[in-house]
Amino acid sequence: MNDPSGIREGEVAVELPPGFDAGLYFIGRIRTPWTSRDDCPKNGRESDAVCTIELDPRYAAGLQNVESCSHLLVLYWMDKARRDLLLQAPRHYSQHRGTFALRSPVRPNPIAASIVRLLEVEGSRLSVVGLDCLDGTPLLDIKPYFASTDAVPEASVGWHVERES
Amino acid sequence: MNDPSGIREGEVAVELPPGFDAGLYFIGRIRTPWTSRDDCPKNGRESDAVCTIELDPRYAAGLQNVESCSHLLVLYWMDKARRDLLLQAPRHYSQHRGTFALRSPVRPNPIAASIVRLLEVEGSRLSVVGLDCLDGTPLLDIKPYFASTDAVPEASVGWHVERES
Repeated sequence: MNDPSGIREGEVAVELPPGFDAGLYFIGRIRTPWTSRDDCPKNGRESDAVCTIELDPRYAAGLQNVESCSHLLVLYWMDKARRDLLLQAPRHYSQHRGTFALRSPVRPNPIAASIVRLLEVEGSRLSVVGLDCLDGTPLLDIKPYFASTDAVPEASVGWHVERES
Repeated sequence: MNDPSGIREGEVAVELPPGFDAGLYFIGRIRTPWTSRDDCPKNGRESDAVCTIELDPRYAAGLQNVESCSHLLVLYWMDKARRDLLLQAPRHYSQHRGTFALRSPVRPNPIAASIVRLLEVEGSRLSVVGLDCLDGTPLLDIKPYFASTDAVPEASVGWHVERES
């Protein structure tokens, strides 16, 4: 059924470019209760576990004013994911879909984006609710969440609605 | 007033690590009407200009099902931004703030995240509304926007509210 490279039936891979175009710094680590892919919740709203964002103390001064944010947009690096699939069938969906129509970690640049509720900032550690990633996941960025530009309650994902109905 | 390195009064820089931890592929380019920083809108809701996301045709198969999304989360690379400021005073704010409390392009990993409204997918080109970046900005990722996990209309940014009142 599955071929030796780990591609499932109907999945399509692309040949990635020979080199990278830009570089990332891991600026911290995310601490969660989940140590295997199968333990992770399907998305950040599925669990109310308190997770900890451990920012490298080198960057701690950048947290000024963060305590005034109720919610944050957190970017992190899904370092366990393959990067070459364009059509894929994630574990909880039966049908394959285009990578850019999925939130799967498998994508050319495996950057995950999650909205979290901020509980507390203590030095360079943030307690938050709303993450779904593996313990030890590398942190890329923390941004304030602005409802005025980031919240679109009426947004819809057609293929997902169809699946549910 | 400004020192030769371009740091304004009250801004604080950090010494960045000697090397990168991960690499990014530029998977396309964003076409906008804005060719200088000063022309760019302050944020994506400030303009209703139609912009074009030109995905590298190599990845076009990944767009399957994207046409069913009303809104997308677009990640792109602010390649003109310095990466070492932890406290900064962006052009439209008088006071300096922590980098992680700002959406400024200046940050250790200058990845921007914008929510756009999708108008049309045509081959590997997407017409969207809601971007604020320079013409030619490198594209990193396209994700479906799920209101159920991404929309938090009640979110607040305390420092910003105080500034407005």
